[in-house]
Amino acid sequence: MTPLLRQVLSQVDGPDPRLNELVSALVTHLHAFVEEVRPTEREWLAGLDFLIETGKMCTPDRNEFILLSDMLGLTSAVDDVNHAGPDNMTPSSVEGPFHSPTPARELGAWISSGPERERGVPTVVHGRVLDCDGTPLAGAVVDLWQADDTGLYDTQDDSQDRGNLRGLFTTDADGRYWFRTIRPSSYPVPTDGTGGRLLHAIGRHPMRPAHLHYRVTADGYRPLTTHVFLAGDPYLGSDAAFAVKDELICHPVAHDTGSEQWEIDGPFEEIAFDLRLVSVNWTEEKA
Amino acid sequence: MTPLLRQVLSQVDGPDPRLNELVSALVTHLHAFVEEVRPTEREWLAGLDFLIETGKMCTPDRNEFILLSDMLGLTSAVDDVNHAGPDNMTPSSVEGPFHSPTPARELGAWISSGPERERGVPTVVHGRVLDCDGTPLAGAVVDLWQADDTGLYDTQDDSQDRGNLRGLFTTDADGRYWFRTIRPSSYPVPTDGTGGRLLHAIGRHPMRPAHLHYRVTADGYRPLTTHVFLAGDPYLGSDAAFAVKDELICHPVAHDTGSEQWEIDGPFEEIAFDLRLVSVNWTEEKA
Repeated sequence: MTPLLRQVLSQVDGPDPRLNELVSALVTHLHAFVEEVRPTEREWLAGLDFLIETGKMCTPDRNEFILLSDMLGLTSAVDDVNHAGPDNMTPSSVEGPFHSPTPARELGAWISSGPERERGVPTVVHGRVLDCDGTPLAGAVVDLWQADDTGLYDTQDDSQDRGNLRGLFTTDADGRYWFRTIRPSSYPVPTDGTGGRLLHAIGRHPMRPAHLHYRVTADGYRPLTTHVFLAGDPYLGSDAAFAVKDELICHPVAHDTGSEQWEIDGPFEEIAFDLRLVSVNWTEEKA
Repeated sequence: MTPLLRQVLSQVDGPDPRLNELVSALVTHLHAFVEEVRPTEREWLAGLDFLIETGKMCTPDRNEFILLSDMLGLTSAVDDVNHAGPDNMTPSSVEGPFHSPTPARELGAWISSGPERERGVPTVVHGRVLDCDGTPLAGAVVDLWQADDTGLYDTQDDSQDRGNLRGLFTTDADGRYWFRTIRPSSYPVPTDGTGGRLLHAIGRHPMRPAHLHYRVTADGYRPLTTHVFLAGDPYLGSDAAFAVKDELICHPVAHDTGSEQWEIDGPFEEIAFDLRLVSVNWTEEKA
């Protein structure tokens, strides 16, 4: 530790111990960064200018700092440290910026009713909400949102009604949920800001692999926010938001004909995805 | 290293090796910060909101990110890593935001000509510009700026003419410079923004100890930007910008009567401060 850093830390003494801890740790890591890379003054000022520009482009509808946090894996890291649990739980994943209040729907409902329904691949999504012992959870609420076949959410696309490709479902007595939709598409994160400039500068593409978002709640269990990804997507190994986890990748099954069970005509795909919630009473046992 | 961090780092592969190095090191330290303090999502978002607010309050005349960098000792750390030199050099210190083009003046000139001249303590500042062997440097240029007795620079204060309390001097054949002024005052950094809120939250005052700013140039020598501080100032041990170094503290001498030598009437203070520059040919010998 440099004498300078020691001096800075010695003066962190506010009334909130947690804030003191956060500031002290951040200052320590930023000083270590400076010692390690020895930025020139020009580099340092360029970094500060980048932060200014990022702040100035944020609006109520666009948070470029969250995008930077996502694309540097920091949002995922924060998610991970907050959602430790037993090995057989369904892992959480980042919420992303596109959640919005969702209309309640009957099990089996079509959530796709816009022009994308004609273009997209009909898809049945079904599964169960369980506890970590495999016991089905009846009455769990599954909040679901996804982009269309061109990668746009309703809130980004005037051709979709609000609530399109979203749904709020309640599991049945066996913990089951199901709905009909179209297959989501991979899509780029916004590239017209500082986040996009950074991605370009470090040689990365802006794509997120196709996914559906889930937020699941059930009495007595921790809320679970996560994604399901589709096996075979070319961007699974390089998600711009680093949200992919192996347990969240499912294998869609292609059917050449329709299904009476799923009330669907013609060829369709089937995605089966169970979600295992963690009891609110679970505590991390330190070995 | 977490698997997540390893994945993020594996995708940093842009065309500029230095940018890759800077981004990789910053990402590594920020992930280590997250692992160490385990921020809640609420804390993380509060941090991002703080950055947004900081960006939005920056203007061409006010850079709140530089202020944050100053008050966390980061500007000083960047200054230190860029200005290694022999032990007997005069250490550099941060430039701060108040440098501006300065009128050339004759040696001995008064640099104080505003209303502060009636209020302040008359002060003679003199010294030599030397190389690190003690050889005087004739023709060195000393660019000097300071705040008045209330802590305001000309650019902050409509009652001062532009160029007041600033001067550009050229050393004589013996490497000497001198000028007449008033004693500077300690003053607070701006506290009406996010920087001030952070200082308050971590229990710190916003004061900088009284100082004069120097930027010295001479052919064949590295430019030196530094401060001189006044012994006895109550804020020397807790400078809000962490710019104080022991070698930069001088002891003003109080005189009860005027001086013919310094062409000054009545009581005055005398500040003697030599500056030792480093040859452009100096290189750091690694032990």
